[in-house]
Amino acid sequence: MANNGVIRFTGGCYLAQTATTVGKKEHQGPLNAWFDASESDEYFGQSTFEQAESEMVRRNLRLLLEKANVKEEEIGAVLGGDLVNQCTGTSFGISGYQIPFLGLYGACSTIAEALLIGASLVSGGFLPSAVALASSHFCTAERQYRFPPEYGSQRTPTAQYTVTGTGAFLLTAEDTGIRVADGVLGVVTDGGITDANNMGAAMAPAAADTILRYFDHSGRSLADFDAVVTGDLGQEGLELTDELLQKCGLDIAPKHLDCGVLIYDAKKQDMHSGGSGCGCLASVLGGYFFQRMRRGELGRILAIGTGALLSANSAFQKLSIPSVAHAVCLESTTGKGA
Amino acid sequence: MANNGVIRFTGGCYLAQTATTVGKKEHQGPLNAWFDASESDEYFGQSTFEQAESEMVRRNLRLLLEKANVKEEEIGAVLGGDLVNQCTGTSFGISGYQIPFLGLYGACSTIAEALLIGASLVSGGFLPSAVALASSHFCTAERQYRFPPEYGSQRTPTAQYTVTGTGAFLLTAEDTGIRVADGVLGVVTDGGITDANNMGAAMAPAAADTILRYFDHSGRSLADFDAVVTGDLGQEGLELTDELLQKCGLDIAPKHLDCGVLIYDAKKQDMHSGGSGCGCLASVLGGYFFQRMRRGELGRILAIGTGALLSANSAFQKLSIPSVAHAVCLESTTGKGA
Repeated sequence: MANNGVIRFTGGCYLAQTATTVGKKEHQGPLNAWFDASESDEYFGQSTFEQAESEMVRRNLRLLLEKANVKEEEIGAVLGGDLVNQCTGTSFGISGYQIPFLGLYGACSTIAEALLIGASLVSGGFLPSAVALASSHFCTAERQYRFPPEYGSQRTPTAQYTVTGTGAFLLTAEDTGIRVADGVLGVVTDGGITDANNMGAAMAPAAADTILRYFDHSGRSLADFDAVVTGDLGQEGLELTDELLQKCGLDIAPKHLDCGVLIYDAKKQDMHSGGSGCGCLASVLGGYFFQRMRRGELGRILAIGTGALLSANSAFQKLSIPSVAHAVCLESTTGKGA
Repeated sequence: MANNGVIRFTGGCYLAQTATTVGKKEHQGPLNAWFDASESDEYFGQSTFEQAESEMVRRNLRLLLEKANVKEEEIGAVLGGDLVNQCTGTSFGISGYQIPFLGLYGACSTIAEALLIGASLVSGGFLPSAVALASSHFCTAERQYRFPPEYGSQRTPTAQYTVTGTGAFLLTAEDTGIRVADGVLGVVTDGGITDANNMGAAMAPAAADTILRYFDHSGRSLADFDAVVTGDLGQEGLELTDELLQKCGLDIAPKHLDCGVLIYDAKKQDMHSGGSGCGCLASVLGGYFFQRMRRGELGRILAIGTGALLSANSAFQKLSIPSVAHAVCLESTTGKGA
């Protein structure tokens, strides 16, 4: 077995339920009807932006447990993370829950990484169930990576807007109609991009590498999928990824949807290249795509989380931006969809 | 199955090889003979401390592959992380290797978390092999969490010194003489400590909770172990953990060793409460304990990684320090040791 990164959940792991909570801009966007909850106060009733993000994670996990009608003590572990330094968005949010916690850092690929590791733990019989979650908050990210939000600094055309949002996914061993079938673990890829306002270009080579490895080694072809869903490449990164893949003879464009493009009305909401952040794929996959799969409108999708592994320091030091992309295949077990 | 966090690697996962690299202070400490490599230049030949940490990770992974005589393409995945914002110590270090990467954040518990997830992936048959690694560097941690190292600021008696070091562990499915047998996933625990110079006190409740849960639910007792090895509680945290456990009727003191206490000569090296950082447990477990197990001097140990989940921001915001501890049991399969 070579390290092509393909991973198969042969023991069985299923998506039982999701919960999603978003902020004001996402509530005003075209996907609003698909989210479970939204909050117009960017502080979520707390005194700092970081505590706001933790409160969002805390509330959304509570919402997931309520929606799934399960108790804390029935959950084997929570796996997840966020963009805040030392992942405090998640660790403070989970503190108080009596559930084992595995902290992950994959930048905006985190929810895909959490689904892959969580599905391994459940499918392998190591845990009875697991929750995968990830979050981001515009104000924590903006002031950490770029400028204090109060500056109102002008954004470049390729810039993306960090989604205030979170998604939590309950994984179980019982067939719920949606299987976490397989996936591919990402390799860190560095295309030499140094512009921290052009995440899409930085992440495109990682996305293309992961998608190619998936179709080369998983035994599945593009025809098996209703949609190839990337996390937050934005308009710029989506086009670059499609172009890179076309050069390799794979045309995903007709089936390629990007959550960063879907979550906002870029023109009406003045969102430049679209949304980004760990919460982008987490909320759109957990909201829009999960529900469309449940309704039988989509039979099989490949979800790819893409993460730009930079820090404010590495950007100051003028280093290029290594990126990673993890892919997970979700499929209907009821024969609905394509 | 309740969420007591106990996890068993029944499919089999073994420790095939380790590699450890440390800095100057660790080289001058009592464990020097047990490390594979050391570097007297705190920049590791690079131009920034962050790049120094990445270079240390890069070199040490190369060393592991050489020692184990395996090629990059034979490794299923690397799992690991560090303390630097957005875990760039690891992601820049791993960039360039053609190995799938799963980034983790568990603060100083990271290597234990990596061993637990890595052992699940190998034992469950999801990956043919995996490398677990973690690192820390005094200069990256000090300037990020406290003060620029150039300030030479005075340290409190309970303060710990961040280890410059890294450890990498190769996990395989073939019996190598040392099994990763089982473990327990940590629950985030907050004892209300707000002093960022007293990590030992912040982490002690998490360590005690995890050790208690292990002995309550794993089916093993303290008598089955030659040593209970904590990662970096330091002298203060070691004493507090023992005291907390004694109040619960469990006296681990005679078998309790802490890597933060072992790695320096606290008095001669003026190290106050001892060492800390992700690299502390990673280097001491990978060096001293792994080799003592190989020699048959130790038959079974419980290694507990303890992580303080704070950030510089959360400390400025006067929040208490949530902590987590993950435990992993390593045992000889040759009947050597206790």
